Amino acid sequence: MARVHNFNAGPAALPLPVLQKAQAEMLEFGGSGMSVMELSHRSKDFEGIIQAAEANVRKLMGVSDDYAVLFLQGGASLQFAMIPMNLRRDGKTADYVDTGSWASKAIKEGKVGGGTNVAWSGKEENYIRIPKAGELKLTPGGEYLHICSNETIGGIRWPSFPKTDAPLIADMSSEIMSRAIDVNAFGLIYAGAQKNLGPSGLGLVIIRKDLLDRCPESVPIFLRYKTHADESSLYNTPNTWAVYVLKLVTDWVDSLGGLAGMQRINEKKAATLYGVIDSSDFWRCPVAMEDRSIMNVVWRLPNEELEEAFVSEAKKAGMVGLKGHRSVGGIRASIYNAVGQDAVDALVSFMKAFEAKNG
Amino acid sequence: MARVHNFNAGPAALPLPVLQKAQAEMLEFGGSGMSVMELSHRSKDFEGIIQAAEANVRKLMGVSDDYAVLFLQGGASLQFAMIPMNLRRDGKTADYVDTGSWASKAIKEGKVGGGTNVAWSGKEENYIRIPKAGELKLTPGGEYLHICSNETIGGIRWPSFPKTDAPLIADMSSEIMSRAIDVNAFGLIYAGAQKNLGPSGLGLVIIRKDLLDRCPESVPIFLRYKTHADESSLYNTPNTWAVYVLKLVTDWVDSLGGLAGMQRINEKKAATLYGVIDSSDFWRCPVAMEDRSIMNVVWRLPNEELEEAFVSEAKKAGMVGLKGHRSVGGIRASIYNAVGQDAVDALVSFMKAFEAKNG
Repeated sequence: MARVHNFNAGPAALPLPVLQKAQAEMLEFGGSGMSVMELSHRSKDFEGIIQAAEANVRKLMGVSDDYAVLFLQGGASLQFAMIPMNLRRDGKTADYVDTGSWASKAIKEGKVGGGTNVAWSGKEENYIRIPKAGELKLTPGGEYLHICSNETIGGIRWPSFPKTDAPLIADMSSEIMSRAIDVNAFGLIYAGAQKNLGPSGLGLVIIRKDLLDRCPESVPIFLRYKTHADESSLYNTPNTWAVYVLKLVTDWVDSLGGLAGMQRINEKKAATLYGVIDSSDFWRCPVAMEDRSIMNVVWRLPNEELEEAFVSEAKKAGMVGLKGHRSVGGIRASIYNAVGQDAVDALVSFMKAFEAKNG
Repeated sequence: MARVHNFNAGPAALPLPVLQKAQAEMLEFGGSGMSVMELSHRSKDFEGIIQAAEANVRKLMGVSDDYAVLFLQGGASLQFAMIPMNLRRDGKTADYVDTGSWASKAIKEGKVGGGTNVAWSGKEENYIRIPKAGELKLTPGGEYLHICSNETIGGIRWPSFPKTDAPLIADMSSEIMSRAIDVNAFGLIYAGAQKNLGPSGLGLVIIRKDLLDRCPESVPIFLRYKTHADESSLYNTPNTWAVYVLKLVTDWVDSLGGLAGMQRINEKKAATLYGVIDSSDFWRCPVAMEDRSIMNVVWRLPNEELEEAFVSEAKKAGMVGLKGHRSVGGIRASIYNAVGQDAVDALVSFMKAFEAKNG
């Protein structure tokens, strides 16, 4: 075996025990005599999997019966479209905060169908911070306020969440289940699974039930949240394999002490890495201290040649996925739940050696 | 190992060599040091997988450069919505043929957004046949003609395809790659992967490129075919695991002689099963002889008690998924590409013994 330390931004590392269990059960799941991929989505075996997955999400995140938990396809990108289709009624306006690449994509999709107000944008400042409470210019009577709670590319995250009259909607793709949050503060939370929950091809949606009825009848049946909520995510065949892996991943999160446990582990990992970055002028993190992500850590080196050498030498040392997004450059280490302290320790050791050689 | 004979309608059996390869590569794909699920969708490793998958589809089905091959999410159900959104312009009408449960679902979704003409319906006859060429009442200047080429629940399939001025669109979910077809006769072919191509959570779309530009600008970006065609199915993170398994499945189809080889194998399997059904009054297939599916074989027993006993005893004998759909009752054996002659032979042996005991 030559498994690498995987700092990919997504799809990303999965917990090794999850992969080992999926491998062991590949030809025969439980007493079914078949692979999970071969199970009917209407079978008792698969019902057991999807119900356990939902129960895990509810337990770990503290999701009450006031919310539906949906397993959809299309990741976060389909949600960029479904949210305004379902929740912004004709002639009404929705507010969006522009904190970076992912928030911008949601805004771009929002603008296709109707009133879209950008309540704040960090673009002029190169997306290095989250707005303060007083900076948002909200629409009176707005349909909802959309935020991206953690920007994968910019490496910033909301340290706390804005209080609004309109339902708060958050794209949590790159930080879901990485820290304890209060679900009751949100109207809708969504996340592509491929960073902290499992493989790609799955979108988790947690939606307050009173919002299910907002959807106009002109919206295609398949694209209404209510369609999927009424059928417990079995209106059509879900991504059964991804739901199964999500179930295994959330079992693993539970075994580490749930979100409080994960948060402790993640904060320690982040502190280890930011500690080295802040220890010397050789490294430079552009992000405002209080808004630094604990999932996606971005930093620069003195010049682009050194950044290229860093990525290339790290790869030879068994650490991959460290190149910053092509739109911003630099270095990025995604240290999602499944990236252990051992991987971060290996990275900082490499950094110290690299600085000693090149600093 | 106690693998069963799996006659599920979908998700359904996968070729054992595919599962074994997926199992062997679970912790480390090629020289990547990680699982396929952990690969970045922008990595060279995953690009190799998705390009090979597309090349396999093009080779096996004879898809020319006049068509785009897309790997989307949401299965066939999302296509029910995307087709009218993309291909039926304002004020125009699209034709649909109602051959059963799946065609009806496409029609129901079609009716949400605009003009939907049912050119023929088999409902009054309980969906036991495909219409003859002269029976379709097409709309002059219609935007497209939609058919379901094989009805999974009713067990009927189009023996040949209608010739139309408007683009012909076919849902081939339950028979794709089971027989040789002429792609050039179609404007768009689509299929959920979970029957003949791989796991659930993936939709294959083959669309004639001139149709990509029909889409109105009011359609959300993510729901336009052009968005995905322009980015070679990498506009957003695709279902990477399902694309990988589809690549393995299509390698396997190729190894059996491509679609001509599969068709020979499938016709023999179907002949074996229909042969026993037709051999005695104990069994009764309701479907018109010339329209019988070679993928989903449906039949009845003298009464429902015997049907229940058949399903239950078959399960004890290691044959699962034989219960007819709840909407029609009876027995159904789905004998997709990955269900071998050995499984069909085991089933007919069981049938003969069951008839000897109960006939």
